[in-house]
Amino acid sequence: MIDDRVRQQATKLVEWCVEVEPGDTVTIIANEAAKELVTALHAELGDRGAEPVTVYATMDVSVGLSGEPMRAFLQHHDDEFTSPSHLLALLEESDAVIGIRSDTNTNVLSDVSEETKQRRAEAMAPFMDVLTEKEQVCGTQHPTQAWAQRAGMSLPEYEDFVYGAMLRDWAAVEEKQESLRERLESASEARITGPETDITMSLDGMHAVSDIGERNFPGGEVFTAPVVDSVEGEIWFDKPSMVQGHEVEDVRLTVKDGTIVEYSAGKNEETLESVLSTDEGASRIGELGVGMNEGIDRFTRNMLFDEKMDGTVHLAIGRAYHWTVGEDREQNQSAVHVDLLKDMSEGRIELDGEVVQEDGEFVWE
Amino acid sequence: MIDDRVRQQATKLVEWCVEVEPGDTVTIIANEAAKELVTALHAELGDRGAEPVTVYATMDVSVGLSGEPMRAFLQHHDDEFTSPSHLLALLEESDAVIGIRSDTNTNVLSDVSEETKQRRAEAMAPFMDVLTEKEQVCGTQHPTQAWAQRAGMSLPEYEDFVYGAMLRDWAAVEEKQESLRERLESASEARITGPETDITMSLDGMHAVSDIGERNFPGGEVFTAPVVDSVEGEIWFDKPSMVQGHEVEDVRLTVKDGTIVEYSAGKNEETLESVLSTDEGASRIGELGVGMNEGIDRFTRNMLFDEKMDGTVHLAIGRAYHWTVGEDREQNQSAVHVDLLKDMSEGRIELDGEVVQEDGEFVWE
Repeated sequence: MIDDRVRQQATKLVEWCVEVEPGDTVTIIANEAAKELVTALHAELGDRGAEPVTVYATMDVSVGLSGEPMRAFLQHHDDEFTSPSHLLALLEESDAVIGIRSDTNTNVLSDVSEETKQRRAEAMAPFMDVLTEKEQVCGTQHPTQAWAQRAGMSLPEYEDFVYGAMLRDWAAVEEKQESLRERLESASEARITGPETDITMSLDGMHAVSDIGERNFPGGEVFTAPVVDSVEGEIWFDKPSMVQGHEVEDVRLTVKDGTIVEYSAGKNEETLESVLSTDEGASRIGELGVGMNEGIDRFTRNMLFDEKMDGTVHLAIGRAYHWTVGEDREQNQSAVHVDLLKDMSEGRIELDGEVVQEDGEFVWE
Repeated sequence: MIDDRVRQQATKLVEWCVEVEPGDTVTIIANEAAKELVTALHAELGDRGAEPVTVYATMDVSVGLSGEPMRAFLQHHDDEFTSPSHLLALLEESDAVIGIRSDTNTNVLSDVSEETKQRRAEAMAPFMDVLTEKEQVCGTQHPTQAWAQRAGMSLPEYEDFVYGAMLRDWAAVEEKQESLRERLESASEARITGPETDITMSLDGMHAVSDIGERNFPGGEVFTAPVVDSVEGEIWFDKPSMVQGHEVEDVRLTVKDGTIVEYSAGKNEETLESVLSTDEGASRIGELGVGMNEGIDRFTRNMLFDEKMDGTVHLAIGRAYHWTVGEDREQNQSAVHVDLLKDMSEGRIELDGEVVQEDGEFVWE
């Protein structure tokens, strides 16, 4: 028997996230541990007269869309990668794509060299572009022992967590998030204060986006981008972040005229240093996000959930999403986009001098 | 650790069966139980600089390339099937295709109606055409508990059987089979005798083919087609055959002027009857095959192996393969091609009056 929550997730994915129509060609990317969700999706797609193809998760070297076959391929490959034109043809002909994180070991690529992974990621860039341009694309999670272990939980406990975050009244979430989105959209300045933290940034002319689970599921954040050179102050990220497979903790940044001028980390500072030195845009801030998913009450070493944790904010080092950048504003460019998380249970978010969140509670709640 | 025999199979598949070249785009079709072989193939393809994409076995309703997701899809689908154009694009852009039988239950589609399966098979016909036209296509087996159970064996015993049939000196097999192929190619008449069996057929102008594992692996048979209206006599098939998912046993046929005029079966006669009434060509003989794989010493309810059992012959009811039909000869046309198996341990194969096999032993051996 498939867990009924898996069926409900499949319904949400097909109806709410990618809005499948009859006749749509749908590609699912997953590995073997996601079989229950893949099966439930096939039932949903059958109901709607859409056509599924499921691709084993060997197209990407990122955590969540890789696996043992990809490790074997990369370990044995020592030349320049050629382009998998058959995969490109599949994706170009797909109306919708659903990617499922379902690793049996989240360290599966730990013994593949960074250089090989980098070369592979470059060869796959055209595929990521095809996915980015599609409307009906969504990434999601299937709970596995590996992801439960990484989150510090048993599998049944982790399943409760995952489905608690996913199976929400998304129409109600949309309404709630819209209150904040409108305020961020119209605000000129944001200020975040708290322990060892006082940072300001201009949001003037930038766009705010409400993530209600349409491109990744669960959703549950509202995000925007600061005007690049306007960020000023210091901030302490008291929640850990997963950065390139490493857990980076206790990050402190000092920002002047939009550029990070001082930094430290309590754990894996060298990973932070490597990220910051990637390119020019990597020492600027590309995103301000506010986590609003009330089903996410703890850090699970999985950014699909962490950045949406209720009562947190995050800033991203690096690339700004184009949706958040006003037409006449500069989009921060960088090869990296690394989210750093801050608990707001002792802190404030102010917009144009008005407190909108205090100690993790929105003032209108 | 992956069984070293799985690695050897992967090497054979890539080097011998589909002869992968650097830069080739390769599609693997498998389900989750074949993960070890899929992983070993990725290593081989990495070594050769080829590009793999693995598709979950949901494209076909036949035993071996289906699974629980396909069952869910078919159960929930009640309209006309549309064409999965994304799958077609993938296959058209693939230089090579490797299909792997790896079911976790060979009855997975038993509660899908025959009518639905028939409609699906019709919708997928263009995909089968694309596969038929490709040079680098091979079907193979990964041993699973389900296939071991169906064969009446434990899994370790079945693994020994499967790899015993596959990991042979195929160059030596080719040489041995060539002796028979040449004799069949040049023969005018074949006669098969044994208990309750005396049947003759003209092979004049038809072609003989030696299967050494290039389109399905393991190989190990030599086959040709009779001149359609030349088959005369009676034959008792004392080995069971799997026909449309049913085990048909003890089939007896009487053939006059190439047409089956009498038939009976000791088990599932109604299945045989249904096959024979499919169309006009379904009451004619489309193939004469001789099993020559010395690693296959028993019936395992899997035609990939059964028809190659050493010391057996098989006739197929229905469609003749175009490779076996001479340019000026009629190709028997039918929607079906059903192999029926006969043990030759008490019998003879004669070509133009000369005995070539007696009691299962070739005279030149």
